Amino acid sequence: MNFILHQEDLTIGDLEKSYELITESSFHKSSSETHLWPELFLGGYPLQDLVLDKSFIQKYIKTLEQINDFFKTSKKSGSIHLFGGLKYELNNSDLPEKIYNSAYIGVPGKGVREVYRKRLLPNYDIFDEQKYFSPGNKNGFIEIENKTFAIIICEDMWHSTTHQIDPVNELIEEINEKNIKLSGVINISASPYSVGKLESRKLRAKEISHATGTPFFYVNAIGLHDEILFDGQSFCFDGNEYLLASAFTEQSLKINTSKIQNFSSKATEFKTKNTWEDLFSPRINIETKTLTPLSSNEMEELVSAKIYAIFSYLKKVGMNKVTIALSGGIDSAMVLALAHLANLKYRFGEVEAIYMPGQFSAPESYDLSKTMCENLGIKFFNFPIKFIHKNLRHSFDENIRQPLEGLADENIQSRLRGTILYARSNQENSLVLNTSNKSEISVGYSTLYGDSVGAISVLGDLYKSEIFSIAKFLNKKCHKITDGEIIPSGIITRPPSAELRENQKDEDSLPPYERLDFYLEGLLSHQITAEELERLLPFKEEITKTVHLLKRSEYKRFQFCPVIKLKNKSFGFGRRVPILKK
Amino acid sequence: MNFILHQEDLTIGDLEKSYELITESSFHKSSSETHLWPELFLGGYPLQDLVLDKSFIQKYIKTLEQINDFFKTSKKSGSIHLFGGLKYELNNSDLPEKIYNSAYIGVPGKGVREVYRKRLLPNYDIFDEQKYFSPGNKNGFIEIENKTFAIIICEDMWHSTTHQIDPVNELIEEINEKNIKLSGVINISASPYSVGKLESRKLRAKEISHATGTPFFYVNAIGLHDEILFDGQSFCFDGNEYLLASAFTEQSLKINTSKIQNFSSKATEFKTKNTWEDLFSPRINIETKTLTPLSSNEMEELVSAKIYAIFSYLKKVGMNKVTIALSGGIDSAMVLALAHLANLKYRFGEVEAIYMPGQFSAPESYDLSKTMCENLGIKFFNFPIKFIHKNLRHSFDENIRQPLEGLADENIQSRLRGTILYARSNQENSLVLNTSNKSEISVGYSTLYGDSVGAISVLGDLYKSEIFSIAKFLNKKCHKITDGEIIPSGIITRPPSAELRENQKDEDSLPPYERLDFYLEGLLSHQITAEELERLLPFKEEITKTVHLLKRSEYKRFQFCPVIKLKNKSFGFGRRVPILKK
Repeated sequence: MNFILHQEDLTIGDLEKSYELITESSFHKSSSETHLWPELFLGGYPLQDLVLDKSFIQKYIKTLEQINDFFKTSKKSGSIHLFGGLKYELNNSDLPEKIYNSAYIGVPGKGVREVYRKRLLPNYDIFDEQKYFSPGNKNGFIEIENKTFAIIICEDMWHSTTHQIDPVNELIEEINEKNIKLSGVINISASPYSVGKLESRKLRAKEISHATGTPFFYVNAIGLHDEILFDGQSFCFDGNEYLLASAFTEQSLKINTSKIQNFSSKATEFKTKNTWEDLFSPRINIETKTLTPLSSNEMEELVSAKIYAIFSYLKKVGMNKVTIALSGGIDSAMVLALAHLANLKYRFGEVEAIYMPGQFSAPESYDLSKTMCENLGIKFFNFPIKFIHKNLRHSFDENIRQPLEGLADENIQSRLRGTILYARSNQENSLVLNTSNKSEISVGYSTLYGDSVGAISVLGDLYKSEIFSIAKFLNKKCHKITDGEIIPSGIITRPPSAELRENQKDEDSLPPYERLDFYLEGLLSHQITAEELERLLPFKEEITKTVHLLKRSEYKRFQFCPVIKLKNKSFGFGRRVPILKK
Repeated sequence: MNFILHQEDLTIGDLEKSYELITESSFHKSSSETHLWPELFLGGYPLQDLVLDKSFIQKYIKTLEQINDFFKTSKKSGSIHLFGGLKYELNNSDLPEKIYNSAYIGVPGKGVREVYRKRLLPNYDIFDEQKYFSPGNKNGFIEIENKTFAIIICEDMWHSTTHQIDPVNELIEEINEKNIKLSGVINISASPYSVGKLESRKLRAKEISHATGTPFFYVNAIGLHDEILFDGQSFCFDGNEYLLASAFTEQSLKINTSKIQNFSSKATEFKTKNTWEDLFSPRINIETKTLTPLSSNEMEELVSAKIYAIFSYLKKVGMNKVTIALSGGIDSAMVLALAHLANLKYRFGEVEAIYMPGQFSAPESYDLSKTMCENLGIKFFNFPIKFIHKNLRHSFDENIRQPLEGLADENIQSRLRGTILYARSNQENSLVLNTSNKSEISVGYSTLYGDSVGAISVLGDLYKSEIFSIAKFLNKKCHKITDGEIIPSGIITRPPSAELRENQKDEDSLPPYERLDFYLEGLLSHQITAEELERLLPFKEEITKTVHLLKRSEYKRFQFCPVIKLKNKSFGFGRRVPILKK
């Protein structure tokens, strides 16, 4: 018997595509195949309020009926499908009273049947499942070719002090009590990516596998859904080894289950868990007082993640062009490099860059930006704003009778650039990629409607110091692809500046990034206080300033685009903090 | 005995202020006073992730201890305080394992004691209480001057098919079983405003009062917290009548409870409930195929709500000036009128207007805008953008070698205005009020970073047709205040236009607002499908277009500012729909 674990990047709500994938993969295939599809493969994850929408509900129910018809009328020798979907209980007005996050099995000659309801509904960080779903209350087992498999859905594999129940434990109890001869545990998941997360999934799978003495099958979703990125990396743990599908790749992983032997279960001490504290502990090193540095593997993984995310977004909005505002600094250069790599890999269309120098831009910024585009063969526009900026100053003198100066004069340059950038985007129907980093988003070191614009934030979950590391890593790694540095080293070595006034440097306004990023990662986890930071480092004044800036800039983040989530604690839907607060 | 129901507009997290208010109101008062403060009076509502933040937790616990000390050391003859707060159960790392939304009583000479934990934790729409709080599991009673009162918190007063328990029912059961001689039910609330909501609160209070045969005391929060506006309107129902505090006013309502007689409880049929369907039913009239028109009372209430919200926002960010971009259209005129009325009432400082005509602006737009400002005595700037727009066109020819035309040329005017408006805001540290209405936000008939900018959306929960009604209402009502029309009738009668191209009219791109608003209110409720609309009205094409535009413009709403919530279903935190969807 073969299991096929599918990772397909579907748009949320694309029920037709799910129908197609299930029915098409049933043809031209041998009968002894069992197809596994992720959590909410039918419908999408996260659906948010769409799950409550009457139009969606009607379409969902119709599609499920069509799939049922398909299996009923299929030849009995066809293949079996296990997939995630919804179970609605509607009231008299056809509105949902209860909704379950369920697993369905489609059996040729028989039809489709609900076999399990998710029991642990995550409700922390980006998750709001208890807002929409009711929990199931029993274990799930299915029979495939006379073998028994246990079914769980995503979070069910974890346990935590904040959850009332422990589904894996209850599963093992039932298996022991009823003496069920189990052949494996299947987890259909939609588990968002974060750096290093695969390791904890694998560890936990191993624990469960050892405890049941059977293989563990893990099928995970893939693709970007606004800020949430799914990595795939479906796998089977056979008691000894992991058979692993690729990250950030649409793929079907075939596993010959006949080759997997059951083994005797061991008394397993469950160590991995999902407490709030473990999940959101800051990535900092208390000894060195810095961020935990990213390893080469992690940087490699993050680069793949971002490249795939750019492609996934473009695909879903049906666009084939990207426009990036270059400044001569590291952030915009990094975004350009990533978009370029995404285009090399996925051939979505075109990447172009626009450089908009103002009165305070160094000639070096122009040279570095132009050189980078020439190296990569990217279309480069030089669009000076100095003259229009001057006109605006005159107009303020004339119409407002109050000179543009200080902050107003700095910000107007940034907003003028946003205006020009978006006019270019309108001309070409191209996607604007935001270039802000996590450090500047945290402290609000950016201009609302200016350099903070964009459809999606590529770097918004990476601190400035991490971007420097990744730039150096990319330059080494991509040597072959780009025939030289992908990011000119001049961009990496020059001191960061917004170039909005004479001789402006980031370090005049902010603590050095190494310390700033350390403070921020601690504070953003909600687990480290300013007082604790002050005990660790003798910079009371800059710590106080960091806390103040972080608090004060909430209004800018409120209007920020989705940030591709790469870490445990990211800006966006998983961090909800009032704007108006003391 | 006197009960004093307090409605005070506190900033979230302003623990010092809560401490001050409790301690100050304990002095200079007679001993027979009992002070009632709303849900989460200590801490704030909604705290969102702040409730998890270690710094906040430490500060909260310290303040609660200080309040405890205050009561312990107070003279026994002082007054009693009942207030909402948090109860933390921390783990070894001082991080919260469980948090309760609780009621505390402060008794002079004794100290502070937790007396009740909220049982029904709303988790629909804007509410995420199950994300943060654990539910209480028993009824709450307190003794004041040898009389017994039942305590509930906000949502506890409701029942619903989606909730597992019915706290009011359980309360009545316990009262009957134990033969408790009850003297009243006290509900401490933080219940957000929506138009007409007071009526359902009053009805429900009456039901509970009749069922228990005792008065019902309802104390509610007041103030704007990002998008959520609390209206106050605390009240006491004495079995016959309502004694009501004002809406949108900081106030202390004194009730002499000795004058209230208990009455015999009646077998009460509970009619009012909080089902998803009832709460979010669209405000439409299926017969006339229009929105349910706003009554004069409702318009009066909405105007007070918005005026207070503007003031509350300014107060919390510590700003005293407002800048509004006037276009000569109804929306910006309405926002200016409301800001002006807010300043007349609350004297926060200054309101100014800036008019930025472009190539396609009608001379009438200038005349109307100027007239309006002259009538109201508001500072008016005329800031033509024609010349800079022309420069931008030249620059595109020169630098991009592709003429600015079509959508790109339309949008750049809007974004240029956004840029100038925010430069003015930077000059004066003034607050920019957004002028978008619910109809245009729904269909994306606006320019991202252009006319959609602002710190807070004043009209974003009102459809265009409602704004026309309110404009006429305001002109009648404010006749005395403004010595004439507050909004020039020329602005109300001219056809709406964005004036971004020659002879542009909204109706060229959109269905007539009367029908559009009807479609939108149905669709946004999630309860009406396009097919149902098509059965009601013979405009299949424009209905399809409306559905399409609503779906496609999610990305603009994602980056929109907070919308002051005035209705059951509003844009913002209570409506969560993916950007990337089929």
